[in-house]
Amino acid sequence: MTDKVNFNGWTCPRPLQNYPTIVLGHGSGGKMMADLIQHLFSKAFDNDLLNQMADSTILDLSRVFSANGSGRFAFTTDSFVVSPLFFPGGNIGELSIYGTVNDLAMSGAKPLFLSAGFILEEGLPMATLGEVVSSMAKACTLSGVEIATGDTKVVNRGHGDGMYINTTGLGIIPQGVNISPKNARPGDFILVNGNIGDHGMAIMSLRSGLEFETTIKSDTAPLNKLVESIISETTEIHCLRDATRGGLAAVLNELAMSSKIGIEFDERSIPVQPEVNASCEMLGLDPLYIANEGKFVAVLPEAQAEKVLQVMRADPLGINAVIIGKVVDNHPGVVTARTSIGGMRVVDLPAGELLPRIC
Amino acid sequence: MTDKVNFNGWTCPRPLQNYPTIVLGHGSGGKMMADLIQHLFSKAFDNDLLNQMADSTILDLSRVFSANGSGRFAFTTDSFVVSPLFFPGGNIGELSIYGTVNDLAMSGAKPLFLSAGFILEEGLPMATLGEVVSSMAKACTLSGVEIATGDTKVVNRGHGDGMYINTTGLGIIPQGVNISPKNARPGDFILVNGNIGDHGMAIMSLRSGLEFETTIKSDTAPLNKLVESIISETTEIHCLRDATRGGLAAVLNELAMSSKIGIEFDERSIPVQPEVNASCEMLGLDPLYIANEGKFVAVLPEAQAEKVLQVMRADPLGINAVIIGKVVDNHPGVVTARTSIGGMRVVDLPAGELLPRIC
Repeated sequence: MTDKVNFNGWTCPRPLQNYPTIVLGHGSGGKMMADLIQHLFSKAFDNDLLNQMADSTILDLSRVFSANGSGRFAFTTDSFVVSPLFFPGGNIGELSIYGTVNDLAMSGAKPLFLSAGFILEEGLPMATLGEVVSSMAKACTLSGVEIATGDTKVVNRGHGDGMYINTTGLGIIPQGVNISPKNARPGDFILVNGNIGDHGMAIMSLRSGLEFETTIKSDTAPLNKLVESIISETTEIHCLRDATRGGLAAVLNELAMSSKIGIEFDERSIPVQPEVNASCEMLGLDPLYIANEGKFVAVLPEAQAEKVLQVMRADPLGINAVIIGKVVDNHPGVVTARTSIGGMRVVDLPAGELLPRIC
Repeated sequence: MTDKVNFNGWTCPRPLQNYPTIVLGHGSGGKMMADLIQHLFSKAFDNDLLNQMADSTILDLSRVFSANGSGRFAFTTDSFVVSPLFFPGGNIGELSIYGTVNDLAMSGAKPLFLSAGFILEEGLPMATLGEVVSSMAKACTLSGVEIATGDTKVVNRGHGDGMYINTTGLGIIPQGVNISPKNARPGDFILVNGNIGDHGMAIMSLRSGLEFETTIKSDTAPLNKLVESIISETTEIHCLRDATRGGLAAVLNELAMSSKIGIEFDERSIPVQPEVNASCEMLGLDPLYIANEGKFVAVLPEAQAEKVLQVMRADPLGINAVIIGKVVDNHPGVVTARTSIGGMRVVDLPAGELLPRIC
């Protein structure tokens, strides 16, 4: 997959060329770790915060305050253990940035600072790490966040899966924004920003025992700019939630339970790429339960629905946005779908594993 | 090590008793994960922030601001991969709290909020997780922090080592405090708050191939209260750094390089327990390079040294505090030690791995 010195566009910095692979010493707090930080991480994520090089990074949030007139911050964490590390449409690196950026955006926050914690497996090709870090740096630029602090640990061969990445993020919530999974109200409309199931099916197409030929690509993308556009149109948004693990079905169930309301949607309105649909049929899966990495649900008053839909459709990440259903006051905590033949069925929270390690 | 339902003081909540071990479904965003969160994590870490149950937790930092009159926050991340998970004096749970609490304290910050990201290996006994989470909860109480947000992933059997934990922390820096590894000045005195090498040797005594009988216990402890006491005595502190991976030698070298100064210390002044010394001699190791989890270096003007020493000694975590040396303006970037026979030797940054996975 990788040669020692180059991988895709990445070229190994000379001081690291002595290490074709990660060794335990890269995590032990000595010279080798210092080299890795100096020549790989600091170079890729170059910014004044990271360059403080202290046990903690000092963030002057008073500047953020005065620019936003708010003292409310969003704080979220996510560990990424996706397997394989590289998949159609992305890799663990950009996924680890967008995943946390999106969780911040789902609170209406403008993402600002991320931490990055690497758990590397002894034997990981340096070029693989280099390419992942380079993808992370690009993803940071694209979503407008900075890696403010980091950590590297190395575990013995056989006790990891190449690498795991934790990112933890901090963002500022603009004044007037009050988004929570508990805020859905009967009568609210429910929107989705596009085709569902792409990410999960892209990963599934690579899984051993299941491999199939497909052109499906992960939809991994930063949703914060689209959320910003929506908020600048209206702050009357009740809930936002990205449909990652457990897919759209899990998210709708969580909203129904948190807000103690019912949800009804029309199965035929859910946008699914024909190829995802076909793969799901082949494998006996329901696209509603397949993970996404660039799709979210918005719940908001009917009066706002049409104009938010237009804002979504004007953004490349929301071209296929649709209104899928609404919030009802009967059957609180329960999600139902009108099926393609006109009946109603209950859409449950998935029980356990459908496809593990998709993020 | 564990039975299914009880482990040390921990009793498995009834709804989790169907799962004697962690399975992949516990990380897949469905009902099983919801059960784990509800009956284990939320119960142990019970607080209003975590109970928001959204993609991000909303922190109202304006309250923190007005109470502290500062807009500067410390932000730090650490992943914990210690092996084995339980060791004399502690386990990965409390280590993951104190490690991040201490990194915040080393910026002079009052630690406030932590995130907790769990990477669990399929097959991990539920009781082991229960006991670790319970230790984390106690450690939070003891150090005065709250777990504000969390994440759980499960990796396949053979792709982890029981569990890895990432914690990322946020703390507020009081006004007038300006601590940085770049701030050491010639003439400054260097203090250590007690015996070094305990944590690393406690772990080493359990490593396969090296096992030896010992009464050495890890020194894992939260240092924030001690740092607060020091700061309330004087804000004239130049550097603080906890001597974890790479031990005291690594920390002194990092300070020498960051501040572009030299450091001279007296080897005989370094407090080391006789049993740690004996074990080091047996294994041919130097205690200066052995990791600690409750020891730190303070660099401050000579005029403050004696009173800070007294503050340290008045705290149970600083009883054996000593002045070990001082900052000099010759040999910038280089650390030297006066040896027990009166000569001088250069104390280098360790090259690579000495003892991997001690935290």
